[in-house]
Amino acid sequence: MPGALLTIDLGAVAANWRALDAKSANTVETGAVIKANAYGLGVGPVGRALQKAGAKTFFVALAAEGVVLRQAIGPTARIFVFSGYMQGDESAFDEFDLTPLLNSADQVVRYLTHRHGAEYGLQLDSGMNRLGMESPELVSVIEHFPAIDPVLTMSHLACADEPEHPQNLDQLTAFNEMAATLTSQQSSLSATGGILLGADYHMDITRPGIGLYGGEPFMDARPVVTLSLPVIQTRPVAVGESVGYGATWVAPRPSTIATVAGGYADGLIRAMGSNASLYAGDTRCPIVGRVSMDLITVDVTDLAQVPASLDILNTTQTVDVLADAAGTIGYEILTSLGNRYQRVYKD
Amino acid sequence: MPGALLTIDLGAVAANWRALDAKSANTVETGAVIKANAYGLGVGPVGRALQKAGAKTFFVALAAEGVVLRQAIGPTARIFVFSGYMQGDESAFDEFDLTPLLNSADQVVRYLTHRHGAEYGLQLDSGMNRLGMESPELVSVIEHFPAIDPVLTMSHLACADEPEHPQNLDQLTAFNEMAATLTSQQSSLSATGGILLGADYHMDITRPGIGLYGGEPFMDARPVVTLSLPVIQTRPVAVGESVGYGATWVAPRPSTIATVAGGYADGLIRAMGSNASLYAGDTRCPIVGRVSMDLITVDVTDLAQVPASLDILNTTQTVDVLADAAGTIGYEILTSLGNRYQRVYKD
Repeated sequence: MPGALLTIDLGAVAANWRALDAKSANTVETGAVIKANAYGLGVGPVGRALQKAGAKTFFVALAAEGVVLRQAIGPTARIFVFSGYMQGDESAFDEFDLTPLLNSADQVVRYLTHRHGAEYGLQLDSGMNRLGMESPELVSVIEHFPAIDPVLTMSHLACADEPEHPQNLDQLTAFNEMAATLTSQQSSLSATGGILLGADYHMDITRPGIGLYGGEPFMDARPVVTLSLPVIQTRPVAVGESVGYGATWVAPRPSTIATVAGGYADGLIRAMGSNASLYAGDTRCPIVGRVSMDLITVDVTDLAQVPASLDILNTTQTVDVLADAAGTIGYEILTSLGNRYQRVYKD
Repeated sequence: MPGALLTIDLGAVAANWRALDAKSANTVETGAVIKANAYGLGVGPVGRALQKAGAKTFFVALAAEGVVLRQAIGPTARIFVFSGYMQGDESAFDEFDLTPLLNSADQVVRYLTHRHGAEYGLQLDSGMNRLGMESPELVSVIEHFPAIDPVLTMSHLACADEPEHPQNLDQLTAFNEMAATLTSQQSSLSATGGILLGADYHMDITRPGIGLYGGEPFMDARPVVTLSLPVIQTRPVAVGESVGYGATWVAPRPSTIATVAGGYADGLIRAMGSNASLYAGDTRCPIVGRVSMDLITVDVTDLAQVPASLDILNTTQTVDVLADAAGTIGYEILTSLGNRYQRVYKD
C-alpha cells in the first residue's frame, strides 16, 4: 500500500558515528545509544548498521529494549541498560546477556545477591539529580561491597549542549572524584554534546545518541530522515474562505490548498501548526490551518504542478528546523515519528 | 517485564458509545470512528468492544487501518475509509471489503471504472476545505455519472466543538443543499461535537470518535485510560541543587525527587514540563525540571511513602487536563501514547 514514506539513511547514521568517533582519541571507544527504538528509527536496522560501522557497545533505556536489540545484533556486542536492574526484569538480563547500569544501592544489593558473578556497570549522579548514585550512596555501597568491580562507571551531563554552562565542569569534577574511589574497567561521561566539549570529557568510552540521527548539537551531522506525505486532493479556495478546524486560516488571495495524508497521530506535532511547511522539491509550501489527526492542509498556490507527495522532513527542513516550528527539540520529532509510515532503509 | 502500565477501560468505551448513541433518535444509527489505531488505544480490542456494544459501522482514515480492523472484527461490519480510494490501495479494498468515501472527481472516476458494482460513499466538503468534493465538483460528477448511488454521503464539521460558531449552521445548510442533489442510502455530518449540536445535525448515522475515548467536548464521557509509571529511584535534593536537563529547576526546600520510567519517547509530550503532575493515589506530585526522552523527575517530598509507581493519567488528571498542561488537545495525548507501555484491557 502507498501512503507516507519515511526514508532512513543508514549510511548517514554510520557516517555520523564515524565522524563522532573521530572526535575522540583512538584509545577512546565510541559506543552508541539506541534507546527508544533507536530514537524512533528502528533498533534492528540501526543497530546492525552501527555494528557494521564498528560499534561494539550499545546503550538502551529499558531491559525490554535490550531484548529486541540482542535479537537483532547477535551475541557479541555489549548492551548496557540505563534504568539498571528493575524489579521484574531479572530474567531478561539472564536470557539476553544484558548488563545493567546499577543506579542505586538498592539495585546494587539486589543484583549482587541474585546474579553473583555477572557483569554490571554503575551509574553515578554527578549533578543532574535524575538517575544514578550520589557520593554518599556510593560511599555506603563501597563500604558494604569492598570488592565491587564494575565493568563501566558512567554519569550523564545535564547541560552538555551549552558548552559555556558552569555545570559541565562541576559535573566533570564530581564524576572524577567519585570514580576515583573505585576501580572500574571503563568510565564514561559523554553523549553527543559531551563529545564536543573536548578530550577531558571523553574518558574511556563515549555514548553518542542524537548526533547519530542527524540532530543538534552535532552541527556537522548528516541528515538521516526524509518524510514524504501523499497528496490526497487539491482544491481552489476563494478569498475569505477558511481552512481546517476552528476556521483559523482565511485565504488572503485565491489559493490552491492540498490535503496530505499525515497528522499529529503520525507524530507531526500539532503545535507546529502553520510555523512549518512542506516542500515540493526545493519549493516551500506553508501549512495552513490546524494540523489534524490524519491530515495536513498546505498552500500550494505557487506551484506550477502539484506533485504526488510533499516532503515534511528533508535536507532543508531537518528535524531541528521542524522542532523549532513545534517549540521543541529534534529528539522529540524523531521519537514521535509514527507507526503508519512505510519505512524504507537505504545503505 | 514490568514498566509503565497503560490500562484501557473497554467498559468505559462501550458506555461512552451507548451514551452518545442515546443522544440521537432511535432511527439514527451510531457508528464509531477508530482511526489512528482507535485513537492510540488499539484498534482490535476497541473495535471488538464497540461491535459488542452494538456498533455496526466503523470509520478509519487509511485503507491500511481498515485491513487491520477487518481482521479484528470479522466480515459483518461496514468499514468506511475517509481518505477514499487512494492510488495503490486498490487491492486492500477488494480483499478486505472496505468501502471508500470518495472525496474527489478523480477518485470517483477511478473507482467506478475499476470497481464497477462495488459499494462506495461520497465525502463532500461543506466548508472545512480539507477533504471532500465541493458543490461544483459534485455537479460535474453527477453530470458524468447520473446513476451515481452512494451508500453514504457525508461531510465533516470544522467548528463543532464551538456550538455558537456560525460555521456550524453554514456547513449544515451547505451539506443539505449538496446532499439534496443526489440519492444516497444514508447521510452523515456529525462526529462527537456534532452529536451534541442537536437533532438537525444527526442525519442517518453519526460518527463519534473522541467522545468514545473519554475526551472533550463530550463532558459526560467516562475516562478510559489510566497510565502508571514505575519509580526507578528516589533521592534527596538539597536547597539550591538543580534537577534535569538545562538545570532549569532549583530546589527551594530540602526535597525528595523520584525518577520515573517514562518520557517524551512514550508520548508524554515534552511541552507539558512542570505544568503537569503525577499522582500517588489522590496526592498530586509536581513534575520538576524538563521531561526527558525516557525519564521524568517528580517532587515527592510531601509523600509519607513513595509508591512503586506514580500515575500520570487518572480520573483527576484526564487526557484533557494533561493536554491543557501540554498546550494541546486530548486527541493528541491519546494518539501519542507510546509503544513501550504494557497495555492492559479491562472489560
